[in-house]
Order: sequence, then structure tokens, then C-alpha cells
Amino acid sequence: MEHKGFTIWFTGLSGAGKSTLAGLLEKELRSCGMRVEVLDGDVIRTHLSKGLGFSKEDRDTNIRRIGWVCQVLTRNGVVAIAAAISPYRDIRDEVRSHVGNFVEVYMEAPIAVLAERDVKGLYKKALAGEIKNFTGVSDPYEPPLNPEVVCHTDHETVGESLGKIMRVLHQRGYLLDGTGPDPKSFTNP
Amino acid sequence: MEHKGFTIWFTGLSGAGKSTLAGLLEKELRSCGMRVEVLDGDVIRTHLSKGLGFSKEDRDTNIRRIGWVCQVLTRNGVVAIAAAISPYRDIRDEVRSHVGNFVEVYMEAPIAVLAERDVKGLYKKALAGEIKNFTGVSDPYEPPLNPEVVCHTDHETVGESLGKIMRVLHQRGYLLDGTGPDPKSFTNP
Repeated sequence: MEHKGFTIWFTGLSGAGKSTLAGLLEKELRSCGMRVEVLDGDVIRTHLSKGLGFSKEDRDTNIRRIGWVCQVLTRNGVVAIAAAISPYRDIRDEVRSHVGNFVEVYMEAPIAVLAERDVKGLYKKALAGEIKNFTGVSDPYEPPLNPEVVCHTDHETVGESLGKIMRVLHQRGYLLDGTGPDPKSFTNP
Repeated sequence: MEHKGFTIWFTGLSGAGKSTLAGLLEKELRSCGMRVEVLDGDVIRTHLSKGLGFSKEDRDTNIRRIGWVCQVLTRNGVVAIAAAISPYRDIRDEVRSHVGNFVEVYMEAPIAVLAERDVKGLYKKALAGEIKNFTGVSDPYEPPLNPEVVCHTDHETVGESLGKIMRVLHQRGYLLDGTGPDPKSFTNP
């Protein structure tokens, strides 16, 4: 079935749940018969950005590459879901202007909460100074000023977060008529 | 309209007509209502491979990146057309195995003919030793052993070359039923 291409761009600190929610959203949209590709920051670093480090310049290059792939997919009617820290506002906005159909999802969580969860054990190391250029600890993170969706991941279930995103996609006319889930089936924010 | 995703991979020396034929093929397939993206080697070097040079390793990395984008597009029902020298057989075959629906088009032309045409004035410089690692002159080119299509660009019109490709796409069931051009409308090889 034909549907519009668009990009859903998850941004937020490490451990905020970007990849998890991207995976759930992918399933949800696939179940509606949509063509979906997840571009995970870590995976992209293997395929497109091997050799790049974590300076601002290298991070920007990495994000521009993910953005370019999102742009190509979007203009060919595919749903691109990007999940990358993407700490700098100017580069996210640059990607937005190139892509056009762009939904920015800010995965918000206080750093204290993330450090306590510390899923990959990275915050402990970063706070001990063992990892340089760690976003939110020793490297900047610039939250979006006007994201289409904010998920407060410290006091919201993934189902609630997913519901917020689906409602925005529905409102924008990005979901296929009649095939999308009933937006009322998701809890109101 | 839904159609299969596949990749058409043009390989051949600089000036052999890869980009030209890629552009014509793009138009032809678009006119059939297909979603098509051209990945031109030079353009990709700007978007995905800035900083890479022309050593075997860097060339391989560049081709793997183009190949990965082709793979992503193909699995999402888009037609990817790659036009890059892609001099090494092993990397082209690696890309082929990842992509699956893969049509390799070898743009064949004797180097003497290319040097005489010398569209961009590069052969003159390369033969004078002013450009290092110039494929076909001072860097290897490994022709495909079993390409789906060979275009003899020195004694074949672009229309004839295009016809050969369209016939192969038709035979493989890649064209939309009833919307493709009549394969008989192209000159037989």
C-alpha cells in the first residue's frame, strides 16, 4: 500500500530509551503495512561512519550521514526512524530542513535517573572520568526547543510514549487511513 | 503502486557513461511509476565518504557504503541505481550477496576510446602521471565475470544499452505489469 515517507527522529541521552522505543514504533508501523527502516546510531557508526570519533565535527558528520539516509528514504515513501543521541540542535535542525516530513521526539530523562539505571554501565565510567566526550557528563547535550513529541521517560511507560508519537503521526496524516491503530487506544498524555 | 525493490549496479571506467545511462534509466523507470534513487559515486563521496581517498581500502569502504544504502532501499521496495567505478570484483560481489535483487551492468569501453573521448580531461592528466591511482591507467580495474548486462559503449547507442537493461528487468519480473515499456520497442542486442 502506498503511504507518505517521513522521518521520526529520536534524540536524547544514552540510556534514555531511544532504541527501545524506535523498535516498538517500527513494529507498530509495520503492523499497519508500512515500509519502515530503523537507523540506529550505533549501527550506522559501523556501516557509514567507521573511523569517526566523538568530537563535535565527527558527531556532526555522523548525524549528517544518518540524516541524508533519512532524506533518501523519506523521499522514496519509506518511514525512516533514527535513534541517535544527536546532541547538537543546529545539526538536527539542518537535517529537519533537508528531510521535510520530520517528527522530532525528545526522549527526556534527568541525568540522575539515567546514571542510576546505567543500563550499559557507561555513566559510572563517564562520571569516574574513564570515558571522554560522554554526552551529558563531559560533552554537551542541547535539548530541542520545539520537538513534536517529548517523552518523559522517567515517569511515563513506553506504551504511553508510543501513544503520544502515534497520535502525532495520526494528526499529521502520516498513517494509512483505516489501518492505523485507534489513537484513543493509547492513554492521553 | 507497489513494486519489488532491486538494485541496478553500473560498473566501469571513468567516462564509460555510467552516470548518463543511470539518469536515463531513472527517467524510464519513474515514467513507469516506480520509486527510484540514483546513487552516484561522486555524490556519495560528498554525503557519506568525505575524507576517504583512493587507496584500495578507502575505495572498498566507499563502495560498501553505497552498497549498504542500496541494500536498505532495496529491502524497502525502492529501485536503487548505483553508478560508481567500483573497480574491485570481490567488493561488488560482496554487495551483490547483501542486496539480493542485484543487476550488474558492466559499461565496457576500451581505454583507448575513453582516453580519446576524455570528457573531463582526466585521462590526459592520468596518462601524464598527474593523477595518481587513476583506475585503468595507474590503478586496477577488474571487469565482472558474469554481469547481467554488458553495454559495449564504444559501438552501441545509449538507446540500445537502455533496451538491454530494460529487457533483463522485464525478464526478471522487476517491472510493473502492464506499465513497463514494450521490450520489443528496444533494438535487439
